[in-house]
Amino acid sequence: MRACVLHSAKDLRIEERPEAPLAAHEVRVRVRAGGICGSDLHYFFHGRVGDFVIREPLVPGHEFAGEVTEIGTGVTRLRPGQRVCVNPARNCGTCPRCREGRPNLCENVFFMGSASKFPHMHGGFAEFTTVAESQCFAVSGELPFEEMAFAEPLSVALHAALRGGNLMGRKVLVTGAGPIGQLVMLAARRGGAAHLAITDMINQPLQAARNMGADESFNVSGGTEALLEASRRIGGFDVVFEASGASPALNAGLLAVRAGGIVVQVGSLPGGETPVMANRIMAREIDLRGAFRFGEVFGDAVACLEKRLIDVRPLLTGTYTMDTASQAFAAAQDRTRNLKVVITF
Amino acid sequence: MRACVLHSAKDLRIEERPEAPLAAHEVRVRVRAGGICGSDLHYFFHGRVGDFVIREPLVPGHEFAGEVTEIGTGVTRLRPGQRVCVNPARNCGTCPRCREGRPNLCENVFFMGSASKFPHMHGGFAEFTTVAESQCFAVSGELPFEEMAFAEPLSVALHAALRGGNLMGRKVLVTGAGPIGQLVMLAARRGGAAHLAITDMINQPLQAARNMGADESFNVSGGTEALLEASRRIGGFDVVFEASGASPALNAGLLAVRAGGIVVQVGSLPGGETPVMANRIMAREIDLRGAFRFGEVFGDAVACLEKRLIDVRPLLTGTYTMDTASQAFAAAQDRTRNLKVVITF
Amino acid sequence: MRACVLHSAKDLRIEERPEAPLAAHEVRVRVRAGGICGSDLHYFFHGRVGDFVIREPLVPGHEFAGEVTEIGTGVTRLRPGQRVCVNPARNCGTCPRCREGRPNLCENVFFMGSASKFPHMHGGFAEFTTVAESQCFAVSGELPFEEMAFAEPLSVALHAALRGGNLMGRKVLVTGAGPIGQLVMLAARRGGAAHLAITDMINQPLQAARNMGADESFNVSGGTEALLEASRRIGGFDVVFEASGASPALNAGLLAVRAGGIVVQVGSLPGGETPVMANRIMAREIDLRGAFRFGEVFGDAVACLEKRLIDVRPLLTGTYTMDTASQAFAAAQDRTRNLKVVITF
Amino acid sequence: MRACVLHSAKDLRIEERPEAPLAAHEVRVRVRAGGICGSDLHYFFHGRVGDFVIREPLVPGHEFAGEVTEIGTGVTRLRPGQRVCVNPARNCGTCPRCREGRPNLCENVFFMGSASKFPHMHGGFAEFTTVAESQCFAVSGELPFEEMAFAEPLSVALHAALRGGNLMGRKVLVTGAGPIGQLVMLAARRGGAAHLAITDMINQPLQAARNMGADESFNVSGGTEALLEASRRIGGFDVVFEASGASPALNAGLLAVRAGGIVVQVGSLPGGETPVMANRIMAREIDLRGAFRFGEVFGDAVACLEKRLIDVRPLLTGTYTMDTASQAFAAAQDRTRNLKVVITF
Repeated sequence: MRACVLHSAKDLRIEERPEAPLAAHEVRVRVRAGGICGSDLHYFFHGRVGDFVIREPLVPGHEFAGEVTEIGTGVTRLRPGQRVCVNPARNCGTCPRCREGRPNLCENVFFMGSASKFPHMHGGFAEFTTVAESQCFAVSGELPFEEMAFAEPLSVALHAALRGGNLMGRKVLVTGAGPIGQLVMLAARRGGAAHLAITDMINQPLQAARNMGADESFNVSGGTEALLEASRRIGGFDVVFEASGASPALNAGLLAVRAGGIVVQVGSLPGGETPVMANRIMAREIDLRGAFRFGEVFGDAVACLEKRLIDVRPLLTGTYTMDTASQAFAAAQDRTRNLKVVITF
Repeated sequence: MRACVLHSAKDLRIEERPEAPLAAHEVRVRVRAGGICGSDLHYFFHGRVGDFVIREPLVPGHEFAGEVTEIGTGVTRLRPGQRVCVNPARNCGTCPRCREGRPNLCENVFFMGSASKFPHMHGGFAEFTTVAESQCFAVSGELPFEEMAFAEPLSVALHAALRGGNLMGRKVLVTGAGPIGQLVMLAARRGGAAHLAITDMINQPLQAARNMGADESFNVSGGTEALLEASRRIGGFDVVFEASGASPALNAGLLAVRAGGIVVQVGSLPGGETPVMANRIMAREIDLRGAFRFGEVFGDAVACLEKRLIDVRPLLTGTYTMDTASQAFAAAQDRTRNLKVVITF
Repeated sequence: MRACVLHSAKDLRIEERPEAPLAAHEVRVRVRAGGICGSDLHYFFHGRVGDFVIREPLVPGHEFAGEVTEIGTGVTRLRPGQRVCVNPARNCGTCPRCREGRPNLCENVFFMGSASKFPHMHGGFAEFTTVAESQCFAVSGELPFEEMAFAEPLSVALHAALRGGNLMGRKVLVTGAGPIGQLVMLAARRGGAAHLAITDMINQPLQAARNMGADESFNVSGGTEALLEASRRIGGFDVVFEASGASPALNAGLLAVRAGGIVVQVGSLPGGETPVMANRIMAREIDLRGAFRFGEVFGDAVACLEKRLIDVRPLLTGTYTMDTASQAFAAAQDRTRNLKVVITF
Repeated sequence: MRACVLHSAKDLRIEERPEAPLAAHEVRVRVRAGGICGSDLHYFFHGRVGDFVIREPLVPGHEFAGEVTEIGTGVTRLRPGQRVCVNPARNCGTCPRCREGRPNLCENVFFMGSASKFPHMHGGFAEFTTVAESQCFAVSGELPFEEMAFAEPLSVALHAALRGGNLMGRKVLVTGAGPIGQLVMLAARRGGAAHLAITDMINQPLQAARNMGADESFNVSGGTEALLEASRRIGGFDVVFEASGASPALNAGLLAVRAGGIVVQVGSLPGGETPVMANRIMAREIDLRGAFRFGEVFGDAVACLEKRLIDVRPLLTGTYTMDTASQAFAAAQDRTRNLKVVITF
């Protein structure tokens, strides 16, 4: 089979690779569409994501969907021909975090398309991949594979929304209008948010957010005055989702949230120490909560896509074939033109 | 009457002041004992606490107890002669935060002994003070006034403990072994903490903490290696209380807490931005929660003192008369000798 | 002015009554529309609701909206001519329940249109009524008064939904398809419920529920087999809202909810003891939670109506004038024809 | 080896039985002490517990401790000679309830000494038993086996206490002063309960409860007036634990709890429908929460016993040898003389 293989920064090759053998509880999936995530972009442009460095050729990709072509002898729920969204995470089920119902914090997780362990864990940007049956969520209808590839980032957004507590009737701010910020905004609306504001440094994604239902948007490239004035007008935001990964945005969130409010950090900040208005967390009794990947919401994300309870089509701004994968990565980097770029296989 | 009056940094005078008139729902209290808090020390040594600057003579003191000497015409629960702990906070009861049960975040709070508003709000370091009946909690028994003066800082500790969630069976770390850190440790034990560790930069308060029941203590002046090794051995602390107000201690807490754990910031950090390992909050899905003053726990704190469910006597290391108040402040500053210093009136 | 006055069961008269004087913080409201609630029906048909018996002539009505015609000297936010939804509850703000943010459990609440106290507290089924400014929520747009009259029952539904915990992604069952059940269903959808089922003993309201988005409905007049089979198919409902006030429905809910699930009792059951499968609550570790009236969600309910985030128009099945109020009550009783009946004044 | 074998009601025989083979991840335990639980009494006196009927000879016993005598080839943490408390429950780790961190609700649990499945699951009242390594919690010190046998019922109590929410500062009532009620009371005190009341129908266990720290006790055999008067005096209990399994006690709890309070049903009620004041749950917005067995607290229970954070010795009122097991069951039935009876092997 052919696969996208990343050898180092900006060195992405289409190569022949052997297909993996099929264990009893596994299925082979013919990959049909895969979305490019921010961490994929970091691997592609910098050869690393934070502390995780590419030390051997890596097949990237953790947002993907396809068709089952072959099933292991112990597989009971799936059959060849089924269309499936694939959960790239496989948790151990026995560590303390798994046992307390937080599988996203599993100490032994296998996460596809990641260099966090060595040997690296290969991802789904290939013609075929082999995954556990339990990672596959069948889609019965006619949902295009490009939409099915949103199941993973939508899971991240739904999980972040849950970390923000019950959002019904809440005034919500999202800082950062990239794909995750946009999906968090849609998840917050689904959860009953009464008022939705969003920020970014450029106009195009803010326009897209307004088209998808944002009540107000703020280009904060020139400062946060308008945002903070809006916050004062409504008595402060109840919940802020920081989805940009920039510490100034986190601090803007800490200023814009009401006393006793919640700030959820879902964007990946730089490692090490970052300047944070931490005393404000104490003096205004704010909850700053991390949101990391996702827990048991993958099935719910698939159902949302299937019933279009959340419509991700406005986010799908570019589609490329496997042969032009490098161009896909370049396009995904251009935030003035693209929200989510998908590669088809 | 005579009162301690702080005119500027290190300029504390004992002065004659008129007694305030008595409104219908107020009582006059003969102050008998008042504890010196960290914020009192900041006012005394620096003339300010963060952004709050002494702009006119201020009577300090928000940890105090005394006897009722006179009652207003509308007072129903109290009578002259009763011994009372006084809650220095009077919230408005009608702002959004009061209405949602978080009076410590009241937008219009009157907090005694604070320069946060102008005119300043005078405190209890005086022979007499006038407070609302609702601020007074009667103590029936023979509890010494010096112990009664702990009701306020114990309330802070109990509130912080509540912000840490249910502590029963939890492994708890407290960073900073000052009076608040020690009281938080005692509150955590009362709440069922299974394992209690505490840190500081000097040995004397750590020894005191071990005497009061700490399972282990760490002098982190030379580094956090031993602390982090202890954290690894127990699978990480479930809940960390940061009570030192130093950002390195906050970061040590973020390193020592387990994935999915809780860090409560109760110590007052410097204003503005502080270096924080914020990405760790995201990647390990930590909850960083502020704890500010206290809510509806004052009555519980008084009951704890009265029944000695929490015994604060080991914390009471110095007693001074009003006439030697300046020496009391100097003594309270010396952490090698003192935990809590109390002034009697 | 003229008012509907209930003298005893089925004895509703249109009478002249003096207008109440206007206190400083009050406004006079020209009532324009009022919805008939289940408790109004109990007063009308039986002269009582549970233990509350009509002992003197009572003006009923707690779901109403109108126009401000006159304002007291201390009123700051409202002016004559404004269209307002009126919150019929005025809580004391000082009892323990108010102080902990649960004003619906206020020990001293004044609730309009109720015989729970003597003298009775008159309601809004009159040409004019006098209420506190804080009870009025202005509606800026063109929303018809008939829709505005839904603010109160929608508040009940939103509060019940909040008592059910975060509903995002949850499988939800509502037992009882009366107005409250229907509104709870809509509130659950707004809160992100992934699957919505509803039951009743008659078909007409179930058809209405399906038209408003129920995923499945069950006429349980012949038994609960189909409901329980549906429950098994989805692994049990996560959250059940019991909105019928019938104990067999509560027991059906206890059978249909999954282990560890939540049942919210919002319907008014008969007083005293009722047969309940209580051991199942223990053995399956179910949370059975009461939901009583509503807390701080009235403003959110008004916003929902104003933006039509929740569209109540399909529920509005009958409109009567004040002069035909008795016919309105009779019509509201007929569940095969009506969901919500509104009287205009 | 010899074992206690229950053939039917009151037919308990000491019989020779073959030792079970030892799987790779199992250890063989020489049982040294086993406590008699209420469900054991039901099996002994009635041949059944609710719907679970003895259909083949059953080795009872799920509260026991002993010494490891032999370890399987895959065992890594234990070695022969270690003294262990044994968790009688082994959950599957993969069902939805296990995955959300509620292993006590596992759909496939293996629970020792229970007839809930056929073939029955044999318990620990035997000279030897074979259990998974993961079920064993080593005790390092000199704790007597009779105290170690309390790990299981103490786990039930700790779990119930956790279901009651954060108890710090709360006023708590326990209805039913049997072994579980007493342990729940001790667990509530450990969790910081400020006031502890307990009820029963006979005086002896109430006296024991007062000796162990109950603030007040009520013999309700003649009515609940004194209890309800005590409730009124303190503004209602915040949390009630119903540990008697009698529905009148549940209703007394519903009357004694404050509006917005919590009632935890931990006692086993009769199956089917029970008369419950269910409307009160709605009108006073009470949370009625089931508590079933225990989740991940077994290790914490063992630590409590080991450090004597909770001292169970006053509960240990009778010790019998295996040969007099039938007498032990008879003694355990006599609540005027015994709280917990232990059999040694």
